[in-house]
Amino acid sequence: MAATFSLTQAIDRAVRIKGASSAVVDGDTRFTWREFGDRVARLAAGFQALGLASGGRVVLLALNSHRSLECFFAAMHAGGVIVPLNHRLGKLEIAAQVADCDPDVIVVGSEFVEQVRGLPKRADQRPPALVHCASGPAPEGLAAFEDLIARSDPVDDALRCGEDLACLIYTSGTTNAAKGVMLSHANLCANTANVIGELGMDEATVDLHHGPLFHIASAARLFSASHVAGCHVILPRFVAAEVIAEIERSRITHLTLVPTMVRMLLDEPGFAAADLSSLRYVSYGSAAMPEPLLREFMERLPQVRFVQSYGMTELSPVTTILGWQDHLPGAAANGRLRSAGRAAMFAEVAVVGPDDRPLPIGKAGEIVARGPMVMQGYWNRPDLTAEALRGGWMHTGDIGYLDGDGYLFVVDRLKDMIITGGENVWSQEVENALSAHPAIAQCAVIGKPDAHWGETVHAVVTLKAGNAASAQELIDHCRDLLAHYKCPRSVDIRADPLPLSGANKILKAALREQLTA
Amino acid sequence: MAATFSLTQAIDRAVRIKGASSAVVDGDTRFTWREFGDRVARLAAGFQALGLASGGRVVLLALNSHRSLECFFAAMHAGGVIVPLNHRLGKLEIAAQVADCDPDVIVVGSEFVEQVRGLPKRADQRPPALVHCASGPAPEGLAAFEDLIARSDPVDDALRCGEDLACLIYTSGTTNAAKGVMLSHANLCANTANVIGELGMDEATVDLHHGPLFHIASAARLFSASHVAGCHVILPRFVAAEVIAEIERSRITHLTLVPTMVRMLLDEPGFAAADLSSLRYVSYGSAAMPEPLLREFMERLPQVRFVQSYGMTELSPVTTILGWQDHLPGAAANGRLRSAGRAAMFAEVAVVGPDDRPLPIGKAGEIVARGPMVMQGYWNRPDLTAEALRGGWMHTGDIGYLDGDGYLFVVDRLKDMIITGGENVWSQEVENALSAHPAIAQCAVIGKPDAHWGETVHAVVTLKAGNAASAQELIDHCRDLLAHYKCPRSVDIRADPLPLSGANKILKAALREQLTA
Repeated sequence: MAATFSLTQAIDRAVRIKGASSAVVDGDTRFTWREFGDRVARLAAGFQALGLASGGRVVLLALNSHRSLECFFAAMHAGGVIVPLNHRLGKLEIAAQVADCDPDVIVVGSEFVEQVRGLPKRADQRPPALVHCASGPAPEGLAAFEDLIARSDPVDDALRCGEDLACLIYTSGTTNAAKGVMLSHANLCANTANVIGELGMDEATVDLHHGPLFHIASAARLFSASHVAGCHVILPRFVAAEVIAEIERSRITHLTLVPTMVRMLLDEPGFAAADLSSLRYVSYGSAAMPEPLLREFMERLPQVRFVQSYGMTELSPVTTILGWQDHLPGAAANGRLRSAGRAAMFAEVAVVGPDDRPLPIGKAGEIVARGPMVMQGYWNRPDLTAEALRGGWMHTGDIGYLDGDGYLFVVDRLKDMIITGGENVWSQEVENALSAHPAIAQCAVIGKPDAHWGETVHAVVTLKAGNAASAQELIDHCRDLLAHYKCPRSVDIRADPLPLSGANKILKAALREQLTA
Repeated sequence: MAATFSLTQAIDRAVRIKGASSAVVDGDTRFTWREFGDRVARLAAGFQALGLASGGRVVLLALNSHRSLECFFAAMHAGGVIVPLNHRLGKLEIAAQVADCDPDVIVVGSEFVEQVRGLPKRADQRPPALVHCASGPAPEGLAAFEDLIARSDPVDDALRCGEDLACLIYTSGTTNAAKGVMLSHANLCANTANVIGELGMDEATVDLHHGPLFHIASAARLFSASHVAGCHVILPRFVAAEVIAEIERSRITHLTLVPTMVRMLLDEPGFAAADLSSLRYVSYGSAAMPEPLLREFMERLPQVRFVQSYGMTELSPVTTILGWQDHLPGAAANGRLRSAGRAAMFAEVAVVGPDDRPLPIGKAGEIVARGPMVMQGYWNRPDLTAEALRGGWMHTGDIGYLDGDGYLFVVDRLKDMIITGGENVWSQEVENALSAHPAIAQCAVIGKPDAHWGETVHAVVTLKAGNAASAQELIDHCRDLLAHYKCPRSVDIRADPLPLSGANKILKAALREQLTA
């Protein structure tokens, strides 16, 4: 059997057709596709020499750099699986995820070396080899990244493909239980096929990666931009002034933003004078784009095509797309800017009732999706996998409806989630943390509308009789337990009990109404 | 496991997002995607009622019509495999292919009913059900197509996908042995993913199908145009005046031509006055486009983007693409119009020596390809499959070289083949037929350069001592044995023996030189 859909094949092709062109630009470091392919093949050999087995995991815990990209492709080239971890999570969360995926190798940025050294030893797992994700000499006990590349001879591609596992990406769940989403080579190739037409991606693409690569939206773009033999430009994080400077410097054509970032770009003093004429497509997702903000951005950058996508990690991630044509003033007049667009080319999207039967047009129910982009399942969790994929459809947990032309309108989230600055925060996880404080009687965590972040995390609580706690004390309590972005920004301490449903559940809808009233 | 890459999924999506738009236009018959989806689901039920088993074959032997498209999708929707046969082949060839694929159902056009009735009965095969591919009442013993649709309730999609077999397409080989190329759902979805970006295909696509659907180039376009929820316009065959009229009438955006057809269009009296402003992309393949012809066509249709592709049935079929950018005068100046372009997005292309090792840049050898578009193999021929796919690469049998930027130049065909008007003719098959004539001593069949057809079939022969035969007599002899297009157009009867190599093989290269000198 010949090889089928493969992510590493993208590198082989790019080397053949764009060998002398830039593959990666990271500050003053720049590699051609030929150099990049060579580094990947050497790093893969290095990983194997350190003990990476076929199908073994390579954990990446580092800020974005060209080395992150090399790790993604080298792990797969060596026959392994890349596991980019969210370094913003708490120590316990990261420890749980490392224990869950049992890696052969951990590639760790300087900032996180002590944290990795502090990981609990597990008697039933072989200690992973550690690689320092930086230039120069490595700390004691870690392999130096550039040494590993320089000392290894390039190894042949292990040719992982099709249903072989490519990435394991952990998603926040409603509890602290680690839940690794298994994405195959075919899954992520399906995403490439689903987006490149809509995003006009081709070999002239210069894609700016400012988002953390442990997010599927950013990671998937590594693959699509590689499949078209485009150029990757890396920034360690989103800083408006730096993004503007990089667009000018590298003639960026493709950019992914959340609405918060659009506002920050528009407000940046250098924006008006900057030469942003290279930009062709801006994609956004994670949260709805406020129409006035979009209008303002489109007026300032009339040559840019805006594309919205909707999806989730389990869907690799893009499932519906609102194309640039639907963003034009004429098309937008019909209210479709409030939709999440239509099923991507290789996706089927439906809305079902509690009995999993399809609902009629216009009727809201759970959004489900089917197609080659649907994950293989949750790592080590066949129970959760069977539940999520029952009947052959991925159950998103979001509530929405379809119109007669297949446009999807997302109206609520079945899973109780807040999206703040593009990050998902599960209310229940924050509520669990708050409830651990001895003074808390009741608590509910909801999203508070925010012009900058889209939503911020807002807690409404009551205290036990005879107890006292300040809002700041409760926030500090959460900071000990949770990643910073998950902690409440504001706490409303009430004297009266919170409103309850007939089933004695806190009526969050009522709390949300009070907040916006 | 959720469904993966699927061809029938394209129909479900198109019904959801373009339900009220035209799916198929065939003369005065027009169906929306909703109607088309309904007809497919009913026809699938009809096929099942006639005995189509899961994985069973539906043979299609008919001229192009909307019913052909419905058969393609209904066969798969019902869980079966579509086998479009080349009705231009000889009776013996068709009989051999039917026997080889052992269909449950044969859908047959009026022109071919007697031929199908005359198929030899095989004791070891169940006789297939026959369906009349036409409107109105059916001849004795055949089910009427429209009755089958009207009387059947729509059945659910069997959800064939991924590595499931979708199409079986017979290719001419060097002998008369039937050789069915097995293409899976994933194979043909890979082709869609490989072409849609390069051809700018989207939901506004209006694709003219004038080519016979038993050719992979035409069949694959059924799928790509469906995946983007475009519109199919059907013509029973290529007639320049009708093609021009249909472009005007249906506002065709996408057209596939071989160079011969470009010439015929340009020479058509109505061409100059026609409104062809809807045309956006013209793709061509099978034969190199003469540069003056291309220049003339581009000048006449300046808004059209030309795209060349190279491939073969075994590659679903597109493997390399010469993009429209490479057709622009500036880009073309470097000689790349003589190339077949570069590896398509999900394809790897290499050139190897007789030992299957890669050759250096610029060195000619056998062209091999790898990727998700590579066939599953030859039906019932594991021996030929293993040979063709050895080492994980499809061996094309063509000779070419790659330049430093991955452009493929096809310089010769390892398999001795003539391409006449876009049809492949295997020299050996024609030589076998000629040799069966009692007067023939030696024969060699080669391609004769032709301004209209690209090449025509030319035979060079010597006669046995004491025998006589005219050129016309030899051609008539071939007509009894071969499809019309395979028969020699011209025969050179020589008195002197043909030039031989050291191994006593006829030196065709010398004959070709004499022909062009």
